[in-house]
Amino acid sequence: MPTRRAFLSTAGAASAFVWLPKPVKGYSTAEMRAFTASADGVTTRGVSKWDLDTPALCLDLDAMERNVATMQAALKRFGVVSRPHAKTHKCAAIAKYQLSTGSIGICCAKLTEAEAFYAAGIEPILMTTSNPSPQKVRRAMALRKKNPQFIQAVDEEPNARDLSAAAKEADVVADVVIDVAVGTRSGIPAGEGALALAKVIDTLPNLKLRGLLSYDGGVQHQKGFAARKARALQAIEANAATREAMKKAGLNVEIFSGGGTGTYNIMHHVPGFSDLQVGSYLFMDMQYLEIGGEDGNAVYKDFAPSLTVTTTIMNNRFPGLLTTDAGTKALTLNKPNPGVIGEPGMDYTAGSDEFGTIKVTSASKSYKIGDKLEVIVPHCDPVVNEYDQIYGIRNDRVEVVWPITARGKSQ
Amino acid sequence: MPTRRAFLSTAGAASAFVWLPKPVKGYSTAEMRAFTASADGVTTRGVSKWDLDTPALCLDLDAMERNVATMQAALKRFGVVSRPHAKTHKCAAIAKYQLSTGSIGICCAKLTEAEAFYAAGIEPILMTTSNPSPQKVRRAMALRKKNPQFIQAVDEEPNARDLSAAAKEADVVADVVIDVAVGTRSGIPAGEGALALAKVIDTLPNLKLRGLLSYDGGVQHQKGFAARKARALQAIEANAATREAMKKAGLNVEIFSGGGTGTYNIMHHVPGFSDLQVGSYLFMDMQYLEIGGEDGNAVYKDFAPSLTVTTTIMNNRFPGLLTTDAGTKALTLNKPNPGVIGEPGMDYTAGSDEFGTIKVTSASKSYKIGDKLEVIVPHCDPVVNEYDQIYGIRNDRVEVVWPITARGKSQ
Repeated sequence: MPTRRAFLSTAGAASAFVWLPKPVKGYSTAEMRAFTASADGVTTRGVSKWDLDTPALCLDLDAMERNVATMQAALKRFGVVSRPHAKTHKCAAIAKYQLSTGSIGICCAKLTEAEAFYAAGIEPILMTTSNPSPQKVRRAMALRKKNPQFIQAVDEEPNARDLSAAAKEADVVADVVIDVAVGTRSGIPAGEGALALAKVIDTLPNLKLRGLLSYDGGVQHQKGFAARKARALQAIEANAATREAMKKAGLNVEIFSGGGTGTYNIMHHVPGFSDLQVGSYLFMDMQYLEIGGEDGNAVYKDFAPSLTVTTTIMNNRFPGLLTTDAGTKALTLNKPNPGVIGEPGMDYTAGSDEFGTIKVTSASKSYKIGDKLEVIVPHCDPVVNEYDQIYGIRNDRVEVVWPITARGKSQ
Repeated sequence: MPTRRAFLSTAGAASAFVWLPKPVKGYSTAEMRAFTASADGVTTRGVSKWDLDTPALCLDLDAMERNVATMQAALKRFGVVSRPHAKTHKCAAIAKYQLSTGSIGICCAKLTEAEAFYAAGIEPILMTTSNPSPQKVRRAMALRKKNPQFIQAVDEEPNARDLSAAAKEADVVADVVIDVAVGTRSGIPAGEGALALAKVIDTLPNLKLRGLLSYDGGVQHQKGFAARKARALQAIEANAATREAMKKAGLNVEIFSGGGTGTYNIMHHVPGFSDLQVGSYLFMDMQYLEIGGEDGNAVYKDFAPSLTVTTTIMNNRFPGLLTTDAGTKALTLNKPNPGVIGEPGMDYTAGSDEFGTIKVTSASKSYKIGDKLEVIVPHCDPVVNEYDQIYGIRNDRVEVVWPITARGKSQ
C-alpha cells in the first residue's frame, strides 16, 4: 500500500507546534481544570504526551477542531446540518463541543448511552436504534419525560404501540422517527410497509412522528468516491421514495437523517435529506484513510487523523520484530492494522490481548526497550470504547483529560 | 464443524436446575448482598437472566465452580499448584474465590491491573510483564512497599537496576522473577543471557530473585492434544535448561511458572515446574472449545463454558438473517464466531460495532423481534474487558452482580 505508507511517513511531521493552551469551546475554565486529573487522580495537564503512561488514548485537539470546522463548512455549503453520532466518541465533552459549533443534536446507538449523555447534560438526543424490550420501552419513555429533546427510533407496529402506551403512562407525547432499512441490518424495509407503519404511528395518541432515518452502514467504507457515491445514491432511492410517499400522505418528514463520514458530501443530493449522522470525521482511523477522496486520491484526506494511541516497546531482541504494550484490549482487532506514525516500514498487529507485535522491514532508528511509538487506530469507535479517559493534546502536551462518559454502555 | 455444532445443540440443555441460592465461598452474606445491585443501581438479585437488559455478560456460577474444582483436583494429582492469571476475569470477587479454593496467588498483566486488584483486597500478586518505563518502575515499587506479596517480572539488566534503585528508595527488598521468553513475544531468550541476568539480579542489593516465568502463549490454542503436548514440551526445553543452570549456580528457582488452560495437564512433565498461570478454565470460550482434549475428542470438554452473553433480536425481516444488539463492542472480533446456544444452524458474526448479524440455515423456532438468544463468547479475556459488571447466575437467576474491578486497566 504505497499511498498509506507515504501518508504515515509524513504524518508525524505535522506535530511541531508551540505549546500555547487555549480553552475548548463550550467549557468554562473551571470545567477545563476539572478535566485535568486523570481517572487515577494523577494530574497530567501540561505533561508531554510522550510521558503519559501507555497505552494512552490521545486526541490532537487542533486536528479535531479543524475537522469539525471542515465538516460544518461543507455541510453549510450543501444545505444540510450535522447531528453527529456519539457512539463514535461516547464523550460528553466532545458532544458539547459539537453542539457549540453548530451541530443540531447528537445521535445515540444504545439507550444506556443516551441515558449517560443526558446525565452529563446533553439534551438534543436522537436514538437511532429501536428499543424492542419492555424494560427499554419504559426506560426510553422515562428518559423522554425528563428530556423533551429526546427522539426515539421505531421500526415495527407492536413496538410503536408499546411506546405509545408507555408514553401515555409517562404522560408525554413522545417524538419518534421511523428507522427505514438501507441494506439488511436494522429498520423496516422501504416501501408500503414503512408507509403503513408511519400512518399507524400518526394515529397513536402519545407519539409524534418526526420523520425517518436511513443510515447506510455498508457504503461508508466503499473505496473510491465515484463508486461510493453511485452506491449510496442507489441504495437510498427506495427510502427517498418512501419519504416522498409519506409527505404526499400528509405525514411529517422534517427529519430525513443518515449518512456518515464516508458520504457527508453525497447525501445532500437526496431530495429532502435533512441531517448527517457523521461520527468518525472527528478522529479518522486507518479504515477511513483507505476509502479515497473526491479528489481521486487513494488516501481520504478530507479530515485529518486526530486520534492516536501511544505505546511502549517491551521487547526488541528478536530480529525484525518489536513487541509493544498495546494489544487487542488497547487497539481492537479491526483491520487494516494500526498505522505507526513516522514508521512506514512497520506493520503493527494487535493480535495478542496484552501485546502488540510489529514486523519491521525498515525503521528510522534502532528502538530500545522503553521507547515509545504513536499509532493511528484501526477503527475509532470500538477503540474509544476500551478506555475510561481520553487525553486532549495540544502541541504534544495534555490540555484536558476527558472521561469517556458512555464507555461500555452497550445496552 | 460437526463437533462444535453437536456441542452447541446440547449445551443449552445443561441449565435446568432448581433455583436455590447459596453463598459463593470467600464472601460473607453481607458482601454477597452488596453485590446484588448492578452499576446503574437496579437490584437484579433473583431476576431471570432472560429478563436482564441486553447485551448482558453472564457467568454460570455452578459451571465456574465445577471448573475450578476440576482444575484444582487435576493440579493436585500432577503435583503443581495454580496461580491463575487475572487478566482473564479482571474481577476481584473471582480472584477471592480462586484464592479461597487453593490457588496460591494471582497473576496480573498490567501494573494498573495489579494496583486495582490490590486496592480491592488481593495481596498475592505476580506481575508477569516487565515495567520498563520510569513511572512504572516507581509505581511498581510503591505497590511492593504497600504489598509484601507483590512479585515483579523483569527481563533486562537496565530495568533490573532501575527496579533495585526504586526499591532502595522505597526502602524495600523487592521480589522479582525473570521473564524468560518462549517464542518471540515477551521476555529474555533462554540460555546464557538469561543466566547472566539472573546472576546480576542476585547481586543487586534491593532485589530478591524468586525464580523464572516461561509462558508460551502460542501453544495454548494448538489443536490436538498430542501436537499440543509435543510442541509445549519442546518449546520449553531451553527454558528448563536455563532453570537447571540457574539452580546449579546456586540461584533461587522456587518459582518456575507458566502454562495455561491448554497445557494445564502437560507442564508438570517439565522438571521443577511450580505453578500454572491458568485463566480461561473458569469461563471457556469458542477458541478453547476447538483445541481438542486428551481423550481425542475434537471438542475440548475438560472445562464447561460458563461465560455467555445474552442478546436481543432487533430485526427478522430479511430471509435467512437476524440482527441482534450484540456487536463488536459486546463480543469483540475474535474468531471463531460466537456460538449460539441451542441453535447450531446459526452463524453469528459480531462484525458491526453495535449489531450482531446471524446467518440462519436452520432454527428451532421462528424468532421475533424482542426474542433473546445466549451465546458462548469467541475469546473470554477481551470480552470481559468490554463490560463493567458480570452477572453471576445460578439456575438461570441472578445471584450476584460483580464489578469487573480492573476493566480497562491496560496500562
